[in-house]
Amino acid sequence: MSFSKILIANRGEIALRIARTCRELGIATVAVYSTADRDARFVAYADEAVHIGPAPARRSYRYPPAIIEAALRTGAEAIHPGYGFLSEDADFARICAEHGLVFIGPSPEVMECVGDKARVRALLAAAGLPILPGSDGPVGTQAEAEEVAERIGYPVIVKAAAGGGGRGIEAAHHRAGLREAYRRTTALARQMFGNGEVYLERLVHAPRHVEVQFLADTHGNVLHLGDRDCSLQRRNQKLVEEAPSPLLPERVRERLGRHAVAGARHVGYAGAGTMEFLLDAAGEITFMEINARIQVEHPVTELLTGVDLVREQIRIAAGEPLGLTQEQVTLTGAAIECRVNAEDPSAGFRPTPGRLTVYHPPGGPGVRVDSGFSQGDVIPPDYDSLLAKVIVWAPTREQAIVRADRALAEFAVEGPGVATTIPLLRRLLTQPDFVAARHSTALVDALTHESNLMGENR
Amino acid sequence: MSFSKILIANRGEIALRIARTCRELGIATVAVYSTADRDARFVAYADEAVHIGPAPARRSYRYPPAIIEAALRTGAEAIHPGYGFLSEDADFARICAEHGLVFIGPSPEVMECVGDKARVRALLAAAGLPILPGSDGPVGTQAEAEEVAERIGYPVIVKAAAGGGGRGIEAAHHRAGLREAYRRTTALARQMFGNGEVYLERLVHAPRHVEVQFLADTHGNVLHLGDRDCSLQRRNQKLVEEAPSPLLPERVRERLGRHAVAGARHVGYAGAGTMEFLLDAAGEITFMEINARIQVEHPVTELLTGVDLVREQIRIAAGEPLGLTQEQVTLTGAAIECRVNAEDPSAGFRPTPGRLTVYHPPGGPGVRVDSGFSQGDVIPPDYDSLLAKVIVWAPTREQAIVRADRALAEFAVEGPGVATTIPLLRRLLTQPDFVAARHSTALVDALTHESNLMGENR
Repeated sequence: MSFSKILIANRGEIALRIARTCRELGIATVAVYSTADRDARFVAYADEAVHIGPAPARRSYRYPPAIIEAALRTGAEAIHPGYGFLSEDADFARICAEHGLVFIGPSPEVMECVGDKARVRALLAAAGLPILPGSDGPVGTQAEAEEVAERIGYPVIVKAAAGGGGRGIEAAHHRAGLREAYRRTTALARQMFGNGEVYLERLVHAPRHVEVQFLADTHGNVLHLGDRDCSLQRRNQKLVEEAPSPLLPERVRERLGRHAVAGARHVGYAGAGTMEFLLDAAGEITFMEINARIQVEHPVTELLTGVDLVREQIRIAAGEPLGLTQEQVTLTGAAIECRVNAEDPSAGFRPTPGRLTVYHPPGGPGVRVDSGFSQGDVIPPDYDSLLAKVIVWAPTREQAIVRADRALAEFAVEGPGVATTIPLLRRLLTQPDFVAARHSTALVDALTHESNLMGENR
Repeated sequence: MSFSKILIANRGEIALRIARTCRELGIATVAVYSTADRDARFVAYADEAVHIGPAPARRSYRYPPAIIEAALRTGAEAIHPGYGFLSEDADFARICAEHGLVFIGPSPEVMECVGDKARVRALLAAAGLPILPGSDGPVGTQAEAEEVAERIGYPVIVKAAAGGGGRGIEAAHHRAGLREAYRRTTALARQMFGNGEVYLERLVHAPRHVEVQFLADTHGNVLHLGDRDCSLQRRNQKLVEEAPSPLLPERVRERLGRHAVAGARHVGYAGAGTMEFLLDAAGEITFMEINARIQVEHPVTELLTGVDLVREQIRIAAGEPLGLTQEQVTLTGAAIECRVNAEDPSAGFRPTPGRLTVYHPPGGPGVRVDSGFSQGDVIPPDYDSLLAKVIVWAPTREQAIVRADRALAEFAVEGPGVATTIPLLRRLLTQPDFVAARHSTALVDALTHESNLMGENR
């Protein structure tokens, strides 16, 4: 079984990324687009394109009826949700199935299971994964939250059970702070995710963010493709990702891989997924969450392994066995991804939509660019501000850092009112703590406070 | 010892390619440029740029006094010649040395030795390399040419001793034809290379063009980086190159590598070089020539090995040992390079200079683009018509072909009067003989005659 036509329920660089693999597989593509994306590159690239509504995502990219209708009308057999939007929505996966459409991702049951961040902790603890002390599932009241915090000890973090991707997280260092954090996180979770449930975990001070890419098919094969480090974050939003995680002791690296495979098996996963961990200063890892979708940073793993992850996602969804075995996974060199956003770091990272009058992406040895834009295009104000991902490979991390800086330096982006994070990214790449790989997720926010790191945007 | 500043005595994509590696090595660059290249991307990219003369290459890129003066004036310590122009000019290498400048390439003596295509045959035969029956060195008269042809048997080819890169070659199938070929090749060689010497070799019918990349340092280390197949040629000009050579028996592949290393040692080579071979229908290989420079198609080897060849060239010239050993060379997957030329295949491959009003290079997984142009740039009429090299990597040759076609399909180039070889390249990639890897160097010319392969340019 294989697909002859796939609808891509996403936009921008990831819609184009998915369409590229479909084209290589000989699978026709259907783009869906909002009014704001009418002239976008991913729309022109697809074999067919269907307009599904106005710019607000809830009326287009997050609106299942329009997407399902587009799929049925064009005769698509499967839907690739990309990341964000409906990609982790178990209900949407169910609706697809009800209409005879294959959702390219795990089953709705697995999505529900891993989507409940409060409950998946306990489930994976049973599979032998190390879990931070915290609440057993969601906490129902503020009093319960306080009880849990007393038991596990301050500081703690309050997290939205339906959150993910770094949103809906707040730290509390004492009882009074917990009250505020509980109140705010609950309200925000209700508003953002339509589910106000929160849970508590002990706060790890200045951790590293380490994650493992895994693949599982419907025939019981599970393998991992090594780890990534995504510790360069600003307010829990990743800015720079790399593979492999630098300076990770080999025994920790092996354990991460084993945990990812064991965890994926335990929840009955089929598809591509990411298991996220925290690495504390003592070198201990603890499970954080599973992301049941392709990640923004997946290309660093592709550059290290030579595996096309979207291709594997499609194969798995089509019922085919994985294209390789764990023994065939080889990791070579080092890769770094820099997220170039159309934002002004000197103005609080305000998005800077507008027309790209100059857009010359970098090239040459070891450089991959994934972007939804070309010169002359307009960045719409309606969506995230990701302009391009610049991903580099080199034999060593040291060379990859230098290459990433070289690539960013030659990336020319101009437009009225358009600013980018390129100067910031270049400063981050040369931070001594990053170069020496002794940085944590706290680095960027600390720099933002202490220095004028964001102030010299040009 | 290492360099702090390098002058790049070339233009276009290769000048930019070299500058990128210099930047990654922390070496400052000096571009030299003709009036026609004033606004070229490689000029803006370099740290310094020196105007060296008007467009005709003999008054700028091939004019040593202007280049030497620019190097001395800017304090450059070394000169990278790229390919073409002065890259295989032993006299220029000598002039560099006389001015205390390091020429990034082999010694003048080695360049002279391998540049004499008529004599290097005998030299390498002594090193155990298989040589085609032919003349012992250059033939001095037409009568001598006829004598040699009678001895080795028709058909033969007449080649300019100072030629290379597919220029100055003509086949003769009988005595009358030889007279013409001798006359024409001698005249052309005199005119093009300032040296009318020619030599004879037996013609191999419909051979494959197979070559081996090697590296040799000044400490006696020599290694090879596997083979490339460049059989898709039009009139001896390469259009598509790939690595590794497909369907090559393992024993032949090993022999090629051994021959390249033995040959490089035998001539006392130091630098990056290519040993070119012919592979006949019976699977026999014979030595053709050594190219003492970086080749246009070097990126396919870089994608297979992860080795930056320009970086190694610079290391070698600086007296450093090779950055790796033969055992550390691993070849992974398959790579294909497509030369996108600004030419009109439907009008005899007439160059089509002009302004690029649209220029959107391809991207995404496994795609590398080396180009000297951006949107808005002008392709000058004065030089070769290479617009961009689209180089792809994939785990298998089959996937690499599909990916190359995908990348070419998304490469948008527009401009008044500008045509490209993209449609032709896409048709070549899907030719059954190419897909099955049973093509020879005769394929493209045969198609040009037999079909309307060139006629549907759009």
